[in-house]
Amino acid sequence: MTGDRVTAAILIIGDEILSGRTQDTNTQTLARFLGVRGIEVIEVRIVPDETDRIAEAVNTLRAKADYLFTTGGIGPTHDDITADAVAEAFGTPLPENPEAVALLLGRYPGVELNAARRRMARIPEGASLIANPVSIAPGFQIGNVFVLAGVPAIMTGMLDDVAPRLRGGQPVVSRTVRVSGVGEGDIAQPLAAAARTHRDLSLGSYPFFDPAAGRYGSNLVVRGRDAAQVEAVVEELIRALGEAGVTGITRPE
Amino acid sequence: MTGDRVTAAILIIGDEILSGRTQDTNTQTLARFLGVRGIEVIEVRIVPDETDRIAEAVNTLRAKADYLFTTGGIGPTHDDITADAVAEAFGTPLPENPEAVALLLGRYPGVELNAARRRMARIPEGASLIANPVSIAPGFQIGNVFVLAGVPAIMTGMLDDVAPRLRGGQPVVSRTVRVSGVGEGDIAQPLAAAARTHRDLSLGSYPFFDPAAGRYGSNLVVRGRDAAQVEAVVEELIRALGEAGVTGITRPE
Repeated sequence: MTGDRVTAAILIIGDEILSGRTQDTNTQTLARFLGVRGIEVIEVRIVPDETDRIAEAVNTLRAKADYLFTTGGIGPTHDDITADAVAEAFGTPLPENPEAVALLLGRYPGVELNAARRRMARIPEGASLIANPVSIAPGFQIGNVFVLAGVPAIMTGMLDDVAPRLRGGQPVVSRTVRVSGVGEGDIAQPLAAAARTHRDLSLGSYPFFDPAAGRYGSNLVVRGRDAAQVEAVVEELIRALGEAGVTGITRPE
Repeated sequence: MTGDRVTAAILIIGDEILSGRTQDTNTQTLARFLGVRGIEVIEVRIVPDETDRIAEAVNTLRAKADYLFTTGGIGPTHDDITADAVAEAFGTPLPENPEAVALLLGRYPGVELNAARRRMARIPEGASLIANPVSIAPGFQIGNVFVLAGVPAIMTGMLDDVAPRLRGGQPVVSRTVRVSGVGEGDIAQPLAAAARTHRDLSLGSYPFFDPAAGRYGSNLVVRGRDAAQVEAVVEELIRALGEAGVTGITRPE
């Protein structure tokens, strides 16, 4: 695909994802949020709560993509070490940020801002805060890195303050042709032919299989930045599938 | 945590995950399958359908962990390039495997094994097949790398043939203490104290927040390989939380 390409990487931080205790959903939320803005996710990594591992991934991914989004590890407990790791990655100090302290003092009126809560005010020097409309404790942006909460409702809430900071690309248009009751082996040839003819588009086959319902087939997805071209290729593909004797073709969208 | 440590990495392959079109669930399925066998997942990566990117991730991750599991990209369509990428990573040829051809011929009796389906029989030299009880087309193992299907029902089906090949570790025991209606800032100090006293265990705090239900709190998770020690620390932690004035403590498991 050509055009104005803007890329992002995602770093999910947390032992609870790696252990299988928690199902990550932030990747999909972020990918969709970025997708409609024409920003393409090129890599995701999930790493444990270890400072050096986080810092290493931050430095690798912020160099690979236009933007890096991290989720998790910015709360008040001892295992919340993302701010430390990002400061280490950037080689910057991690002082208490007066603006963040003020936000937290407002959040807990009449309550002592204990040492644990003060930890949440430690923000790498040079970073700007990201507003948290849900539970106040802010995220932050430093360079091209956006450091967000891990709790899905809070992470999602922070995106309102992230959106205006992003340079979008030309959004990708995606159209799906579904074939049901047909194996991928029966659609591979016409699909590959269309992919060869239109190398500037992305053509993918995403099979599904539901043994309980006895449903199987594949979603054939055509993606590109020119909506008219994508639509023309979809119609060409449907014609070619028909000529190859494939039945059970629908357009779910 | 000490003891017999066995590690794994996971490589999820597929544009449909990176675009947010599909929610990955294979990571959690694999993490739980490995967890009960005492195999610790130390990193997950999600990469697009690009041969060089897959090959690079395979080589990095197979060196980092005792085992690497890949999911996705082993079907018959043109975008199924995982076998090519793994062969490239190992520097081995990718011939048609007679055993795989025989399996596919049996799967489609009386049907021509077209060029697309024959692609699924290309297996890196030196690899052994992994049985696919769902849709027959096999995965494969080469060295410490297990190459599995991406469709969740098929990936899960393949694990039966993977399990006996793995050297397990000492399983990790995990116990949860739930605090409800309490912010993490109020439990951070007793939790950190327990973590400092028991550095051979892993103590984590995984906050939850459900704005619709107005539910918030945190799951405090104690993990270790000695069940009696884990239980003792859980009781110590509950005592310390009570002494710090925390109420709303339950044990969900």
